[in-house]
Amino acid sequence: MGEVKAILFDVFGSVVDWRGSIIRDLSAWGSAQGLQADWATLADDWRGKYRDSMNRVRSGKLPWMNLENLNAITLDEILPRSLANLGPDQKHHINMVWRRLDPWPDAVPGLTRLKSRYRIATLSNGNVALLAAMAEHARLPWDMIFSAEQFRHYKPDPETYLGAAKLMDLAPGEIMMAAAHVSDLEAAKACGLRTAFFPRPLEFGVAREQSGGDFDILAKDIEDLAAQMGC
Amino acid sequence: MGEVKAILFDVFGSVVDWRGSIIRDLSAWGSAQGLQADWATLADDWRGKYRDSMNRVRSGKLPWMNLENLNAITLDEILPRSLANLGPDQKHHINMVWRRLDPWPDAVPGLTRLKSRYRIATLSNGNVALLAAMAEHARLPWDMIFSAEQFRHYKPDPETYLGAAKLMDLAPGEIMMAAAHVSDLEAAKACGLRTAFFPRPLEFGVAREQSGGDFDILAKDIEDLAAQMGC
Repeated sequence: MGEVKAILFDVFGSVVDWRGSIIRDLSAWGSAQGLQADWATLADDWRGKYRDSMNRVRSGKLPWMNLENLNAITLDEILPRSLANLGPDQKHHINMVWRRLDPWPDAVPGLTRLKSRYRIATLSNGNVALLAAMAEHARLPWDMIFSAEQFRHYKPDPETYLGAAKLMDLAPGEIMMAAAHVSDLEAAKACGLRTAFFPRPLEFGVAREQSGGDFDILAKDIEDLAAQMGC
Repeated sequence: MGEVKAILFDVFGSVVDWRGSIIRDLSAWGSAQGLQADWATLADDWRGKYRDSMNRVRSGKLPWMNLENLNAITLDEILPRSLANLGPDQKHHINMVWRRLDPWPDAVPGLTRLKSRYRIATLSNGNVALLAAMAEHARLPWDMIFSAEQFRHYKPDPETYLGAAKLMDLAPGEIMMAAAHVSDLEAAKACGLRTAFFPRPLEFGVAREQSGGDFDILAKDIEDLAAQMGC
């Protein structure tokens, strides 16, 4: 691992707890607005359409659009099951919840340790404005923000991993992709990146077993990753 | 100015002292290498070709290439006047000097103050890897790095100012461009951005008078800009 100079992180689920955060944020907001809804169902329905919505862009069925634009379309599809008669400002507030996600408890301390020795950055399907606002909200100490939006390709397209490598002026082998998702890491590995897996058993609410794969590092969480990377 | 949410900074000359840094850095390295050269002449010759070299790309005479690739070409053109018989590693070391530029004394304290209230980012013709390495070297606390490289257009092309606005999901009027160069600010203003000018009388070594222009803020330096922006 001596040649690794930068670590790219998947964000949704890996660094931040999208499900718990959406439920907490929208429950509090909904109460203040007098809105009753099953926010857990909304979160799960929304996330359930996440990959399909990006695949519509990846396959060319939809023109390029960034994640917040995609999420707004998906939200309109899934909202009727949870809530009716929302105004545009309310829908916008809900759509912007992804900017307000909270980190897993180990994320900020782990990233801060890694930052002392490596350049750390996002490599996320979230758009730049979303990731920048989230960094401010969650105090994530990124050196750089790389987003599918800059490459006009969603992960796991190789253009994302190799695009970030090119912008960093690093060889793929000098970069490590870190994520709680095997498919992301397998795609990064196929592009020549180093890989680090850590599980997030509670990402989808109900505890699940997650087994790693044939990756360079298997860690318990981001603090453990920092320890294994000598920080 | 109440609507400004983000401040974009020109970097070379505005935030960092390219001329003083190049002379200091290469003088020290040259001594260690046993190389005698007039480093001030090298810095001035190199910078003298800066705008022309980007204009070759802007006009389509050269295909898109990032600033470090352009700088390497320019360096080969101007080196013979200062130094002969350098090896490729030595040329590379010289070309990477832009990653090691030092900030003007007010830059880090001013940016740190502005960061408490605004999102702060580069909008530079430097490439991403250069700007990221410089941020680490000079401890520049950017929230984001925007570079001509991401837009495949050099300033003052409007694609740079408007591209950054789009990635930030902000209207041009919610963004302020801050620079020590009138031409950069005039181009930003034409795109609808707010503008802040501060002089760098010693940018080119010999003290010069710099008058501002019809910009929203005229500041003495970045600390004064922070004060005027309420930080």
